Amino acid sequence: MTERLENLLKQMKTNNMDSVLVTSPANVYYLSNYNSDPHERLLAIFVCQHEDPLLILPAMEEEDAKNAGWKFPTIAYYDHEDPWEMFRLFLQKRSTKINSIALESNQVTLERYLKVKEIFPQAEMMNAEDSLAGLRLIKNKKEYTLLKQAAALADLGVRTGVAAIQEGVSEFDLIATIEYTLKKEGIQGMSFSTMALSGDKTASPHGTPGAKKIEKGDMVLFDLGVIYEGYCSDITRTVAYKSVTDQQRTIYETVRTAQQKAIDASQLGTAVGAIDRAARTHIQEAGYGDYFKHRIGHGLGIETHEYPSMHENNQLQLQPGMCYTIEPGIYVPNQGGVRIEDMIFMTEKGAEILTEYPKELLVLD
Amino acid sequence: MTERLENLLKQMKTNNMDSVLVTSPANVYYLSNYNSDPHERLLAIFVCQHEDPLLILPAMEEEDAKNAGWKFPTIAYYDHEDPWEMFRLFLQKRSTKINSIALESNQVTLERYLKVKEIFPQAEMMNAEDSLAGLRLIKNKKEYTLLKQAAALADLGVRTGVAAIQEGVSEFDLIATIEYTLKKEGIQGMSFSTMALSGDKTASPHGTPGAKKIEKGDMVLFDLGVIYEGYCSDITRTVAYKSVTDQQRTIYETVRTAQQKAIDASQLGTAVGAIDRAARTHIQEAGYGDYFKHRIGHGLGIETHEYPSMHENNQLQLQPGMCYTIEPGIYVPNQGGVRIEDMIFMTEKGAEILTEYPKELLVLD
Repeated sequence: MTERLENLLKQMKTNNMDSVLVTSPANVYYLSNYNSDPHERLLAIFVCQHEDPLLILPAMEEEDAKNAGWKFPTIAYYDHEDPWEMFRLFLQKRSTKINSIALESNQVTLERYLKVKEIFPQAEMMNAEDSLAGLRLIKNKKEYTLLKQAAALADLGVRTGVAAIQEGVSEFDLIATIEYTLKKEGIQGMSFSTMALSGDKTASPHGTPGAKKIEKGDMVLFDLGVIYEGYCSDITRTVAYKSVTDQQRTIYETVRTAQQKAIDASQLGTAVGAIDRAARTHIQEAGYGDYFKHRIGHGLGIETHEYPSMHENNQLQLQPGMCYTIEPGIYVPNQGGVRIEDMIFMTEKGAEILTEYPKELLVLD
Repeated sequence: MTERLENLLKQMKTNNMDSVLVTSPANVYYLSNYNSDPHERLLAIFVCQHEDPLLILPAMEEEDAKNAGWKFPTIAYYDHEDPWEMFRLFLQKRSTKINSIALESNQVTLERYLKVKEIFPQAEMMNAEDSLAGLRLIKNKKEYTLLKQAAALADLGVRTGVAAIQEGVSEFDLIATIEYTLKKEGIQGMSFSTMALSGDKTASPHGTPGAKKIEKGDMVLFDLGVIYEGYCSDITRTVAYKSVTDQQRTIYETVRTAQQKAIDASQLGTAVGAIDRAARTHIQEAGYGDYFKHRIGHGLGIETHEYPSMHENNQLQLQPGMCYTIEPGIYVPNQGGVRIEDMIFMTEKGAEILTEYPKELLVLD
């Protein structure tokens, strides 16, 4: 049994769960080291006290899962077969009594939930979300190392993008150049759609890059991350091209100070909400409160967004092993916006900033 | 009201559904023209007979949705707020009686289902999956054009990859070059992780590219697609580098003939299962039946994988407006594999092949 499966079994014992059916690809990867995007196909791990865990997966991926280290039983199904029926028959043979089964309530679909209820009509339905999120929340040393490497590649992405800015270059061009450099480095992929926005378009926190060319006086915002050996990074930097107005500078410095205040608030034992409020208060006092429309950040690890949600009402206390972003922003409609984002890792000694690209306002020639 | 919303309302009337809550980003995009990856945040459209539709979305995206053309009411929530509570209050004010509510059972999470049950304790819960999938299954002329453009960009991807093959180039390098070219063309993104596999690694249908360099005698398999203005493409081609064995050639020609047989079977009114069997029978007769471990293909459109699943037991009949892949493969463990994939669009006149890259076995110098 692997350490992660052992830890899950401990959690299950504490919570009186007989069994767990894990269906989110990220949690399957966490528990099995098998990383796959099954699209609509079922990929699941069934963990049960006193029995071997079981992996249910498409037949064409069985070898890949074994190569990734899966040594326990599998149900490998073909596309025309019904994996649920095969699961039912498997359980019938095993004949262990299952009094309760827990599902990831934020991930499992309604259809799968109904299938599980059909297979286990007598079992109590429980929620495995918190147990699994709790395990993934605290990263170990190996995960720390991977996150740090992923962060270094995110730094490289920003460095590449900034170096590529010149007259006549479009947002699309910048993205192509950044991703080319990172893919040559052997990343698994980008952790989300790379964002390069310029001018007015920076006013949208989730804006869509386009063919717009970079012009004198634009702020240019990069938000990007990579997946490196299964772990995600995420960074945002905003730079100015050729000139900067007083208002742009004021907004930039307001965001930068707010970000530093949130980093300073990142102390062991502090509640997540206090980190959000440290940045938010500063932005409000500067008169831009209405233009900071999102939370201060989010956890990250195997997924770009995972627990905790770093919003102002979250009472969760910071502990060693947590990894999250701090990314305040000010977005003025029809004018533009600035966001600065770092990845933070909490250690026994306090907050370590994993992303290292400089944060002084850069005005490019 | 837009045509798509009108069509959904008609479907709802036929099926006696008072209301639908749509939570999958692809269906939200289909109905609203607002395309967003909300990660864990709620993004939903509530459609109800005799009332305006409602969009529930993060506050920071409200402007983006309006710019995409959303003209109806919205609930725009901040990260520290509870959108479900805001939805409940909204409905209270509206006070329309809701006797039934339908959800996308293959997409909605258990947690969201439970929230909906709490808000509508008296309403009958129904399944909106088939109605929405049914609408998206039949593409209109505009969708045809976008899919054709996306397919042409997939062709360009393969052409770029093949042109980049030379001594010393790795799978990662090929992917970087392909994606750079496509991103410069202004695609929104790749429709899934680009695959460039070589040598033994082609033996896995869902293999993972790496730093392996292309060597003489390798088969090189490209599987890739783009998202172009919201629509996905998907193509696979396998080429030989410098030399090819008799066995490799036999496998290649077996797959190629199987693929042609499946294309020939693509006639209006034919059941999907017959298309799978046309290719499968040929591969079985050639003695490679055990090495073709997946269905013949899948529908595609706003998502890379959507209805129908093109497996041998699917009785759905081909109709004009359907778009799907035909992608047989033979994968011999520890040796290698071949897959050839095209995108097919069914028109009134029959099957049109959208991807055009040649399929004769190419042995590169």
